[in-house]
Amino acid sequence: MQVKEVYVSAPGKAILHGEHAVVHGKVALAVSLNLRTYMRLEANTTGKVSLNLPNIDIFMSWDLSELRKLVPYFRDAELVRILRDFVGIANGNSDTCNMATLAFLYIYLSLFALSELPSLTVSVWSELPTGAGLGSSAAYSVCVAAALLCASGVIPAPLKEWDHTSRWCQEDLELINSWAFKGEIIIHGNPSGVDNAVGTWGEVPRSTKVLVARVKDKINKFPSIMTPVLDSVDAISCTCEKVLSEMTSEPITGEHYNILEELIDINQHHLNVMGVGHPTLDTVCRVTLARGLHSKLTGAGGGGCGVTLLRPETDSSVVQSTIQDLRDCGFDCWETSIGGAGVQQHSPAAVKQDILDILNQY
Amino acid sequence: MQVKEVYVSAPGKAILHGEHAVVHGKVALAVSLNLRTYMRLEANTTGKVSLNLPNIDIFMSWDLSELRKLVPYFRDAELVRILRDFVGIANGNSDTCNMATLAFLYIYLSLFALSELPSLTVSVWSELPTGAGLGSSAAYSVCVAAALLCASGVIPAPLKEWDHTSRWCQEDLELINSWAFKGEIIIHGNPSGVDNAVGTWGEVPRSTKVLVARVKDKINKFPSIMTPVLDSVDAISCTCEKVLSEMTSEPITGEHYNILEELIDINQHHLNVMGVGHPTLDTVCRVTLARGLHSKLTGAGGGGCGVTLLRPETDSSVVQSTIQDLRDCGFDCWETSIGGAGVQQHSPAAVKQDILDILNQY
Repeated sequence: MQVKEVYVSAPGKAILHGEHAVVHGKVALAVSLNLRTYMRLEANTTGKVSLNLPNIDIFMSWDLSELRKLVPYFRDAELVRILRDFVGIANGNSDTCNMATLAFLYIYLSLFALSELPSLTVSVWSELPTGAGLGSSAAYSVCVAAALLCASGVIPAPLKEWDHTSRWCQEDLELINSWAFKGEIIIHGNPSGVDNAVGTWGEVPRSTKVLVARVKDKINKFPSIMTPVLDSVDAISCTCEKVLSEMTSEPITGEHYNILEELIDINQHHLNVMGVGHPTLDTVCRVTLARGLHSKLTGAGGGGCGVTLLRPETDSSVVQSTIQDLRDCGFDCWETSIGGAGVQQHSPAAVKQDILDILNQY
Repeated sequence: MQVKEVYVSAPGKAILHGEHAVVHGKVALAVSLNLRTYMRLEANTTGKVSLNLPNIDIFMSWDLSELRKLVPYFRDAELVRILRDFVGIANGNSDTCNMATLAFLYIYLSLFALSELPSLTVSVWSELPTGAGLGSSAAYSVCVAAALLCASGVIPAPLKEWDHTSRWCQEDLELINSWAFKGEIIIHGNPSGVDNAVGTWGEVPRSTKVLVARVKDKINKFPSIMTPVLDSVDAISCTCEKVLSEMTSEPITGEHYNILEELIDINQHHLNVMGVGHPTLDTVCRVTLARGLHSKLTGAGGGGCGVTLLRPETDSSVVQSTIQDLRDCGFDCWETSIGGAGVQQHSPAAVKQDILDILNQY
């Protein structure tokens, strides 16, 4: 073990525009969020590896003696299946909680099999909702990859004594991203690679051309009607990227936000046209619009998650009333900004106290 | 006067798809309705010309001696302005009721100025709502043109003794249509010519490439986003025309109606994207969808009128419940079919008794 203790974090992501259209060669626009997943990795002498994921009620512990039996298989193409048997997850079960355990063990074994399996405790706490399409699994995978790569000595711990927060060099980030992607493959089967890239590098905006989708039937049924809609979505993503880029390089004006709102409204209609909308998302749009706020679904659609744009001048009382309206309809709400930094190492002092308390209780 | 009495009728119209997109060179799809405007013209010896439009509370009467003073101006480019002064309509007032009076006098004078101005009574009753974009003014103009052309002897009365209902030959219909268009110009200023064509020829479907619209700003603002939307609307109109045409030549299947419903839903979203939607139309869509029925706005949008598709298997109790739901929201409802015949002459026996009673009371 190269480090005694390491705190890392990685951001979640939101798709602003282009979900579903991307599979048809169109651009999708992903942004990092300022909602993060935090992880503490601590070397110890318990002779055990413990994984604590209190968000999803996962508290696992394995004896090193048991884990060592898996070492011969660490390059086996069947490693994931072997790990399934080891953990006792039935074949066909792809529950995210179980997959998060598999992804951790996979990266742990792969990185330490050729040296000594270390005894350590890993604890994770996320500000992100699980399974809402906000990249919580990728943020987790990025944290696991960064912390274990660091612990194994493959990459250095970037944090200097006098630092509170540090990032890795580009080469190290690429390694973190590639291991996080392996974790994502275990968790999602066929990830786009966007979520782990956003978790690793953060910032806005990031375009992608690969994602999953369910709109093919409708496109095959009405090609002359649907193909232009995808073209329009593509143009929305590009326009939004341009506007966001202007907002980082020029004085931000109300017109910037007006355009962002119009793009949200247009795309929400397009998503409904593509058949991936959901009455609950229409409700979100209606409830927020009644307060003057514009929303669209984000991610896979068919329920799931929506994004609502808050203008800088939006009064906090309006935000609070809207949140209450949404909660009254049974929705959960998270307020955040976009453009969160990619994966970081923190000093304990740089981790919010409440999160630190959670991570340190295991 | 060539005829003592003539009953005529003409259908209203609905735009199924393509409203607003047509100004950008796209196709719009208009169909005739089985809601009609009926007119009775009766020659008399009162020395007066009377115009009774009970739907819009217009009951006018002019002495022939007064009307004869207008004859010298019948080819004057300023005739409409002269008629305004005659009737006493303030300049700038373009109220439909007043314009309907002007259109009648314009056609009356134009057709009879070179012979003798006849004494007659014209009464109109319409099943169409006024000002809802369902072509009520065009149906009126078509009736005025047909009845006055007939009365003047320019075209024959097609009704034979043994007929109940008759239509004119193609050449006569073209003349009716051209005079109706002149009436429409007076009533609307800049009509597309679609409404009077549908009123004259009826049937389904009729494509057009000219209409008014208010979407230019948005297209200029986001050309790359909006141009594909117009392409999609164009494809919707073409697909709908193809499906309707199949339904007249092949056995009608549930899938035909499924497609018509999907086209309605997609286009309703597009119209919202184009910025011509209205919350009240969204309400219509939501209320009808709760009963399994699909709706979209029709015509100019921004409020106005919507169409809801009734499938043949839709239970009449569902229709009645939906109508009640809509009425509870403050909407008026008309149930009709599409494909009504163009302008017709009727025997009194062929006019529904309640309408005959109204027309004959003046």
